[in-house]
Amino acid sequence: MGKLTHFEDGKPRMVDVSDKRATVRVARAEAAVKLTPEAAAALKEGGVGKGDPLVVAQLAGIMAAKKTSELIPLCHPLPLSKVAVEVVFDEAAARVRITCEVKTKAETGVEMEALTAASVAALTVYDMLKAASKGLEIEQVRLLYKSGGKSGTWERG
Amino acid sequence: MGKLTHFEDGKPRMVDVSDKRATVRVARAEAAVKLTPEAAAALKEGGVGKGDPLVVAQLAGIMAAKKTSELIPLCHPLPLSKVAVEVVFDEAAARVRITCEVKTKAETGVEMEALTAASVAALTVYDMLKAASKGLEIEQVRLLYKSGGKSGTWERG
Amino acid sequence: MGKLTHFEDGKPRMVDVSDKRATVRVARAEAAVKLTPEAAAALKEGGVGKGDPLVVAQLAGIMAAKKTSELIPLCHPLPLSKVAVEVVFDEAAARVRITCEVKTKAETGVEMEALTAASVAALTVYDMLKAASKGLEIEQVRLLYKSGGKSGTWERG
Amino acid sequence: MGKLTHFEDGKPRMVDVSDKRATVRVARAEAAVKLTPEAAAALKEGGVGKGDPLVVAQLAGIMAAKKTSELIPLCHPLPLSKVAVEVVFDEAAARVRITCEVKTKAETGVEMEALTAASVAALTVYDMLKAASKGLEIEQVRLLYKSGGKSGTWERG
Amino acid sequence: MGKLTHFEDGKPRMVDVSDKRATVRVARAEAAVKLTPEAAAALKEGGVGKGDPLVVAQLAGIMAAKKTSELIPLCHPLPLSKVAVEVVFDEAAARVRITCEVKTKAETGVEMEALTAASVAALTVYDMLKAASKGLEIEQVRLLYKSGGKSGTWERG
Amino acid sequence: MGKLTHFEDGKPRMVDVSDKRATVRVARAEAAVKLTPEAAAALKEGGVGKGDPLVVAQLAGIMAAKKTSELIPLCHPLPLSKVAVEVVFDEAAARVRITCEVKTKAETGVEMEALTAASVAALTVYDMLKAASKGLEIEQVRLLYKSGGKSGTWERG
Repeated sequence: MGKLTHFEDGKPRMVDVSDKRATVRVARAEAAVKLTPEAAAALKEGGVGKGDPLVVAQLAGIMAAKKTSELIPLCHPLPLSKVAVEVVFDEAAARVRITCEVKTKAETGVEMEALTAASVAALTVYDMLKAASKGLEIEQVRLLYKSGGKSGTWERG
Repeated sequence: MGKLTHFEDGKPRMVDVSDKRATVRVARAEAAVKLTPEAAAALKEGGVGKGDPLVVAQLAGIMAAKKTSELIPLCHPLPLSKVAVEVVFDEAAARVRITCEVKTKAETGVEMEALTAASVAALTVYDMLKAASKGLEIEQVRLLYKSGGKSGTWERG
Repeated sequence: MGKLTHFEDGKPRMVDVSDKRATVRVARAEAAVKLTPEAAAALKEGGVGKGDPLVVAQLAGIMAAKKTSELIPLCHPLPLSKVAVEVVFDEAAARVRITCEVKTKAETGVEMEALTAASVAALTVYDMLKAASKGLEIEQVRLLYKSGGKSGTWERG
Repeated sequence: MGKLTHFEDGKPRMVDVSDKRATVRVARAEAAVKLTPEAAAALKEGGVGKGDPLVVAQLAGIMAAKKTSELIPLCHPLPLSKVAVEVVFDEAAARVRITCEVKTKAETGVEMEALTAASVAALTVYDMLKAASKGLEIEQVRLLYKSGGKSGTWERG
Repeated sequence: MGKLTHFEDGKPRMVDVSDKRATVRVARAEAAVKLTPEAAAALKEGGVGKGDPLVVAQLAGIMAAKKTSELIPLCHPLPLSKVAVEVVFDEAAARVRITCEVKTKAETGVEMEALTAASVAALTVYDMLKAASKGLEIEQVRLLYKSGGKSGTWERG
Repeated sequence: MGKLTHFEDGKPRMVDVSDKRATVRVARAEAAVKLTPEAAAALKEGGVGKGDPLVVAQLAGIMAAKKTSELIPLCHPLPLSKVAVEVVFDEAAARVRITCEVKTKAETGVEMEALTAASVAALTVYDMLKAASKGLEIEQVRLLYKSGGKSGTWERG
């Protein structure tokens, strides 16, 4: 507890999980993009019809989950059994809200996969709205829930 | 202005930049990881010596900048002429602060590259501290500055 | 003319283009997915509303254009200045029709990028319809047009 | 049956396969490249000896099978236990014929891996012959056979 | 024994391992970078403090292990359960010495993953020292040990 | 001279090359695989006919050159204008010898691309011969020549 498990004698490594059991593991994460009035207006106006910007962000998030172990140096490459990403325009709060769920049956969890999916979906929202306004901000990228493995279930309080 | 330039007739595409001039373009972005007391303690204790977790995050950020066009569906693949990432433990504020600068000589800017580098560096900090505490949060992923191209210089107010 | 330019003394290599001039080059390609009645019905029924399967295929095509030089062994890695992919359900002909346009300013052309985008968009259509019917077929993956470079403009007769 | 299983409430996602059993699954697919007389002549003349263009296409197909889940947005990343690709010049029919077989032991099938391998092998044949003739056409990219999993064995009629 | 198992009828393929059992497999490999006096001096002088060049090489090695099946055409994509890379400056011998250990639970071994990690760590050392001296040389890239699978344990004599 | 140019204040970064001129740059590198008698015999016996193991290694080298900036953390992503890899069985010396040439027109050189191509071609030779003998060794991975850029021409003495 409280230890930097990715380090051994002060050197980074990919932790040995070969003694762990492959069990079903789930992680959920979220992120939000805080919009400026210009960006909110552009999204409202342009976001109807097919090819909606939020669908682009959703797909980017799904595909990013599969790239997690390429991006995060000490992450294990894992088979993923489910990736779902929701991207919703919360007009009242002037935010785009992203929620991701990732599942695997593996020796280690998928928290980073869920967080990576949420981050990349949020970056994609930024990319599509940056011509309207550069002042957007990504916030609240955080874990909501995880289950499976020895450390059991965790839920944001 | 205010338009979703990535869309044409409601359909996403990678915008045509072949008429633009290749000029030097710079972008700076930041991100922060809000630490819990357990995570701050683990970082303080484990972060001395070589192989420091912040160096892992820094390298992850640099390498992620090069993967931006693979992650963000409508981003142009660009040559990058500089990527610098700084990762600093702000103990007083209980935060890890990340700043990135990316440069190119190209037809389009590198805002997304700087933001992607900041996001992935922040995710890597999360990954290395998650054994200490799962309640960390990534916030303030945002552009600080951009210059070059027709739209000129922009700076966060 | 008529030679295998990728080969020298019977050995494959990536052709030297350092003497060529960087000029604007365009390529257009198409592909079609021949549907079974079950697949056409599933597409008709499920393809309304946001998140339309054809948008998924369109984005997959755009992203694949950027991966061309990773997939085709002797292709040069190129900056791309435009990628547009259109995916249309031609109900009368029981086909999904895909058209792609790719642009660059480079020493060599983007025919392979346009063809790769068309192929991967078609494969993605297949993937989304395969639960309805496995008997789909991808056909007519072919170049429609290219311009730029020493060999000039070519158009399918 | 006949449903778009990749969609839930009109939104794309990577289907949950965590309840399925990991069983041996096989898929076979094919593709053909229709040659022009110039391309057929170039292949005949240049294709003797080591480094044969067909070997380049074969390797490209094998390597592409491993990239399937990066290319097709909603595909699961899978371990592959076999990939074999055959590329044959059918001079009489003026075609290059490609056949692929992919095997895995996993919760979902490898149809897309076999089809992706066939497509990329065909694109590589195109790339190597395009200096001789741009009028080539890829056709008959289709599944031949699949076995394993709940839906059992399927064979093209 | 003594056969080219990657070839069948003279054609390369990814060998079928679906009949093999998934067992724990370990491989260890090493590499060395022979330094010139200028490079040794630059490393000695610049290698103190955080961000040490050897840490960059170590991380590059870890991340490269995960890319093995993308680099080596006939390698199977495998889940990895451990990757550890050590990079040490042997001043007396004027060498940087690299040792890697990779573990998996799979149907085939991880020799190539360990060798790839060692090679890329060595290339990264070269990259960081090449401004000081271009005359460096990578040598002794070789397997030290492997265990698991039908062929059992092997150790360099 | 003699400085670690990839580091600034003890921290790694991707060096700023935006002030440099894009000029034609060439690099040549080599590598050798030292064979055991068993491996030499397997290669002699199996290496005739199409699909020769040396062609697989050659293609792996060409494709790896394009992946250099993904593998070496501080390398700039560059367009490549030529990649040629030669792989020769030197039976008398019981070695497979690899030579690579890479060209670009860019702000920085392609030494790492040539060395990466040579290393991965050598690793691929190892992979194909490892069933015959695990005692192979990769050696003499080194730069032979570079030209272009401010530091001018360098040749191994």
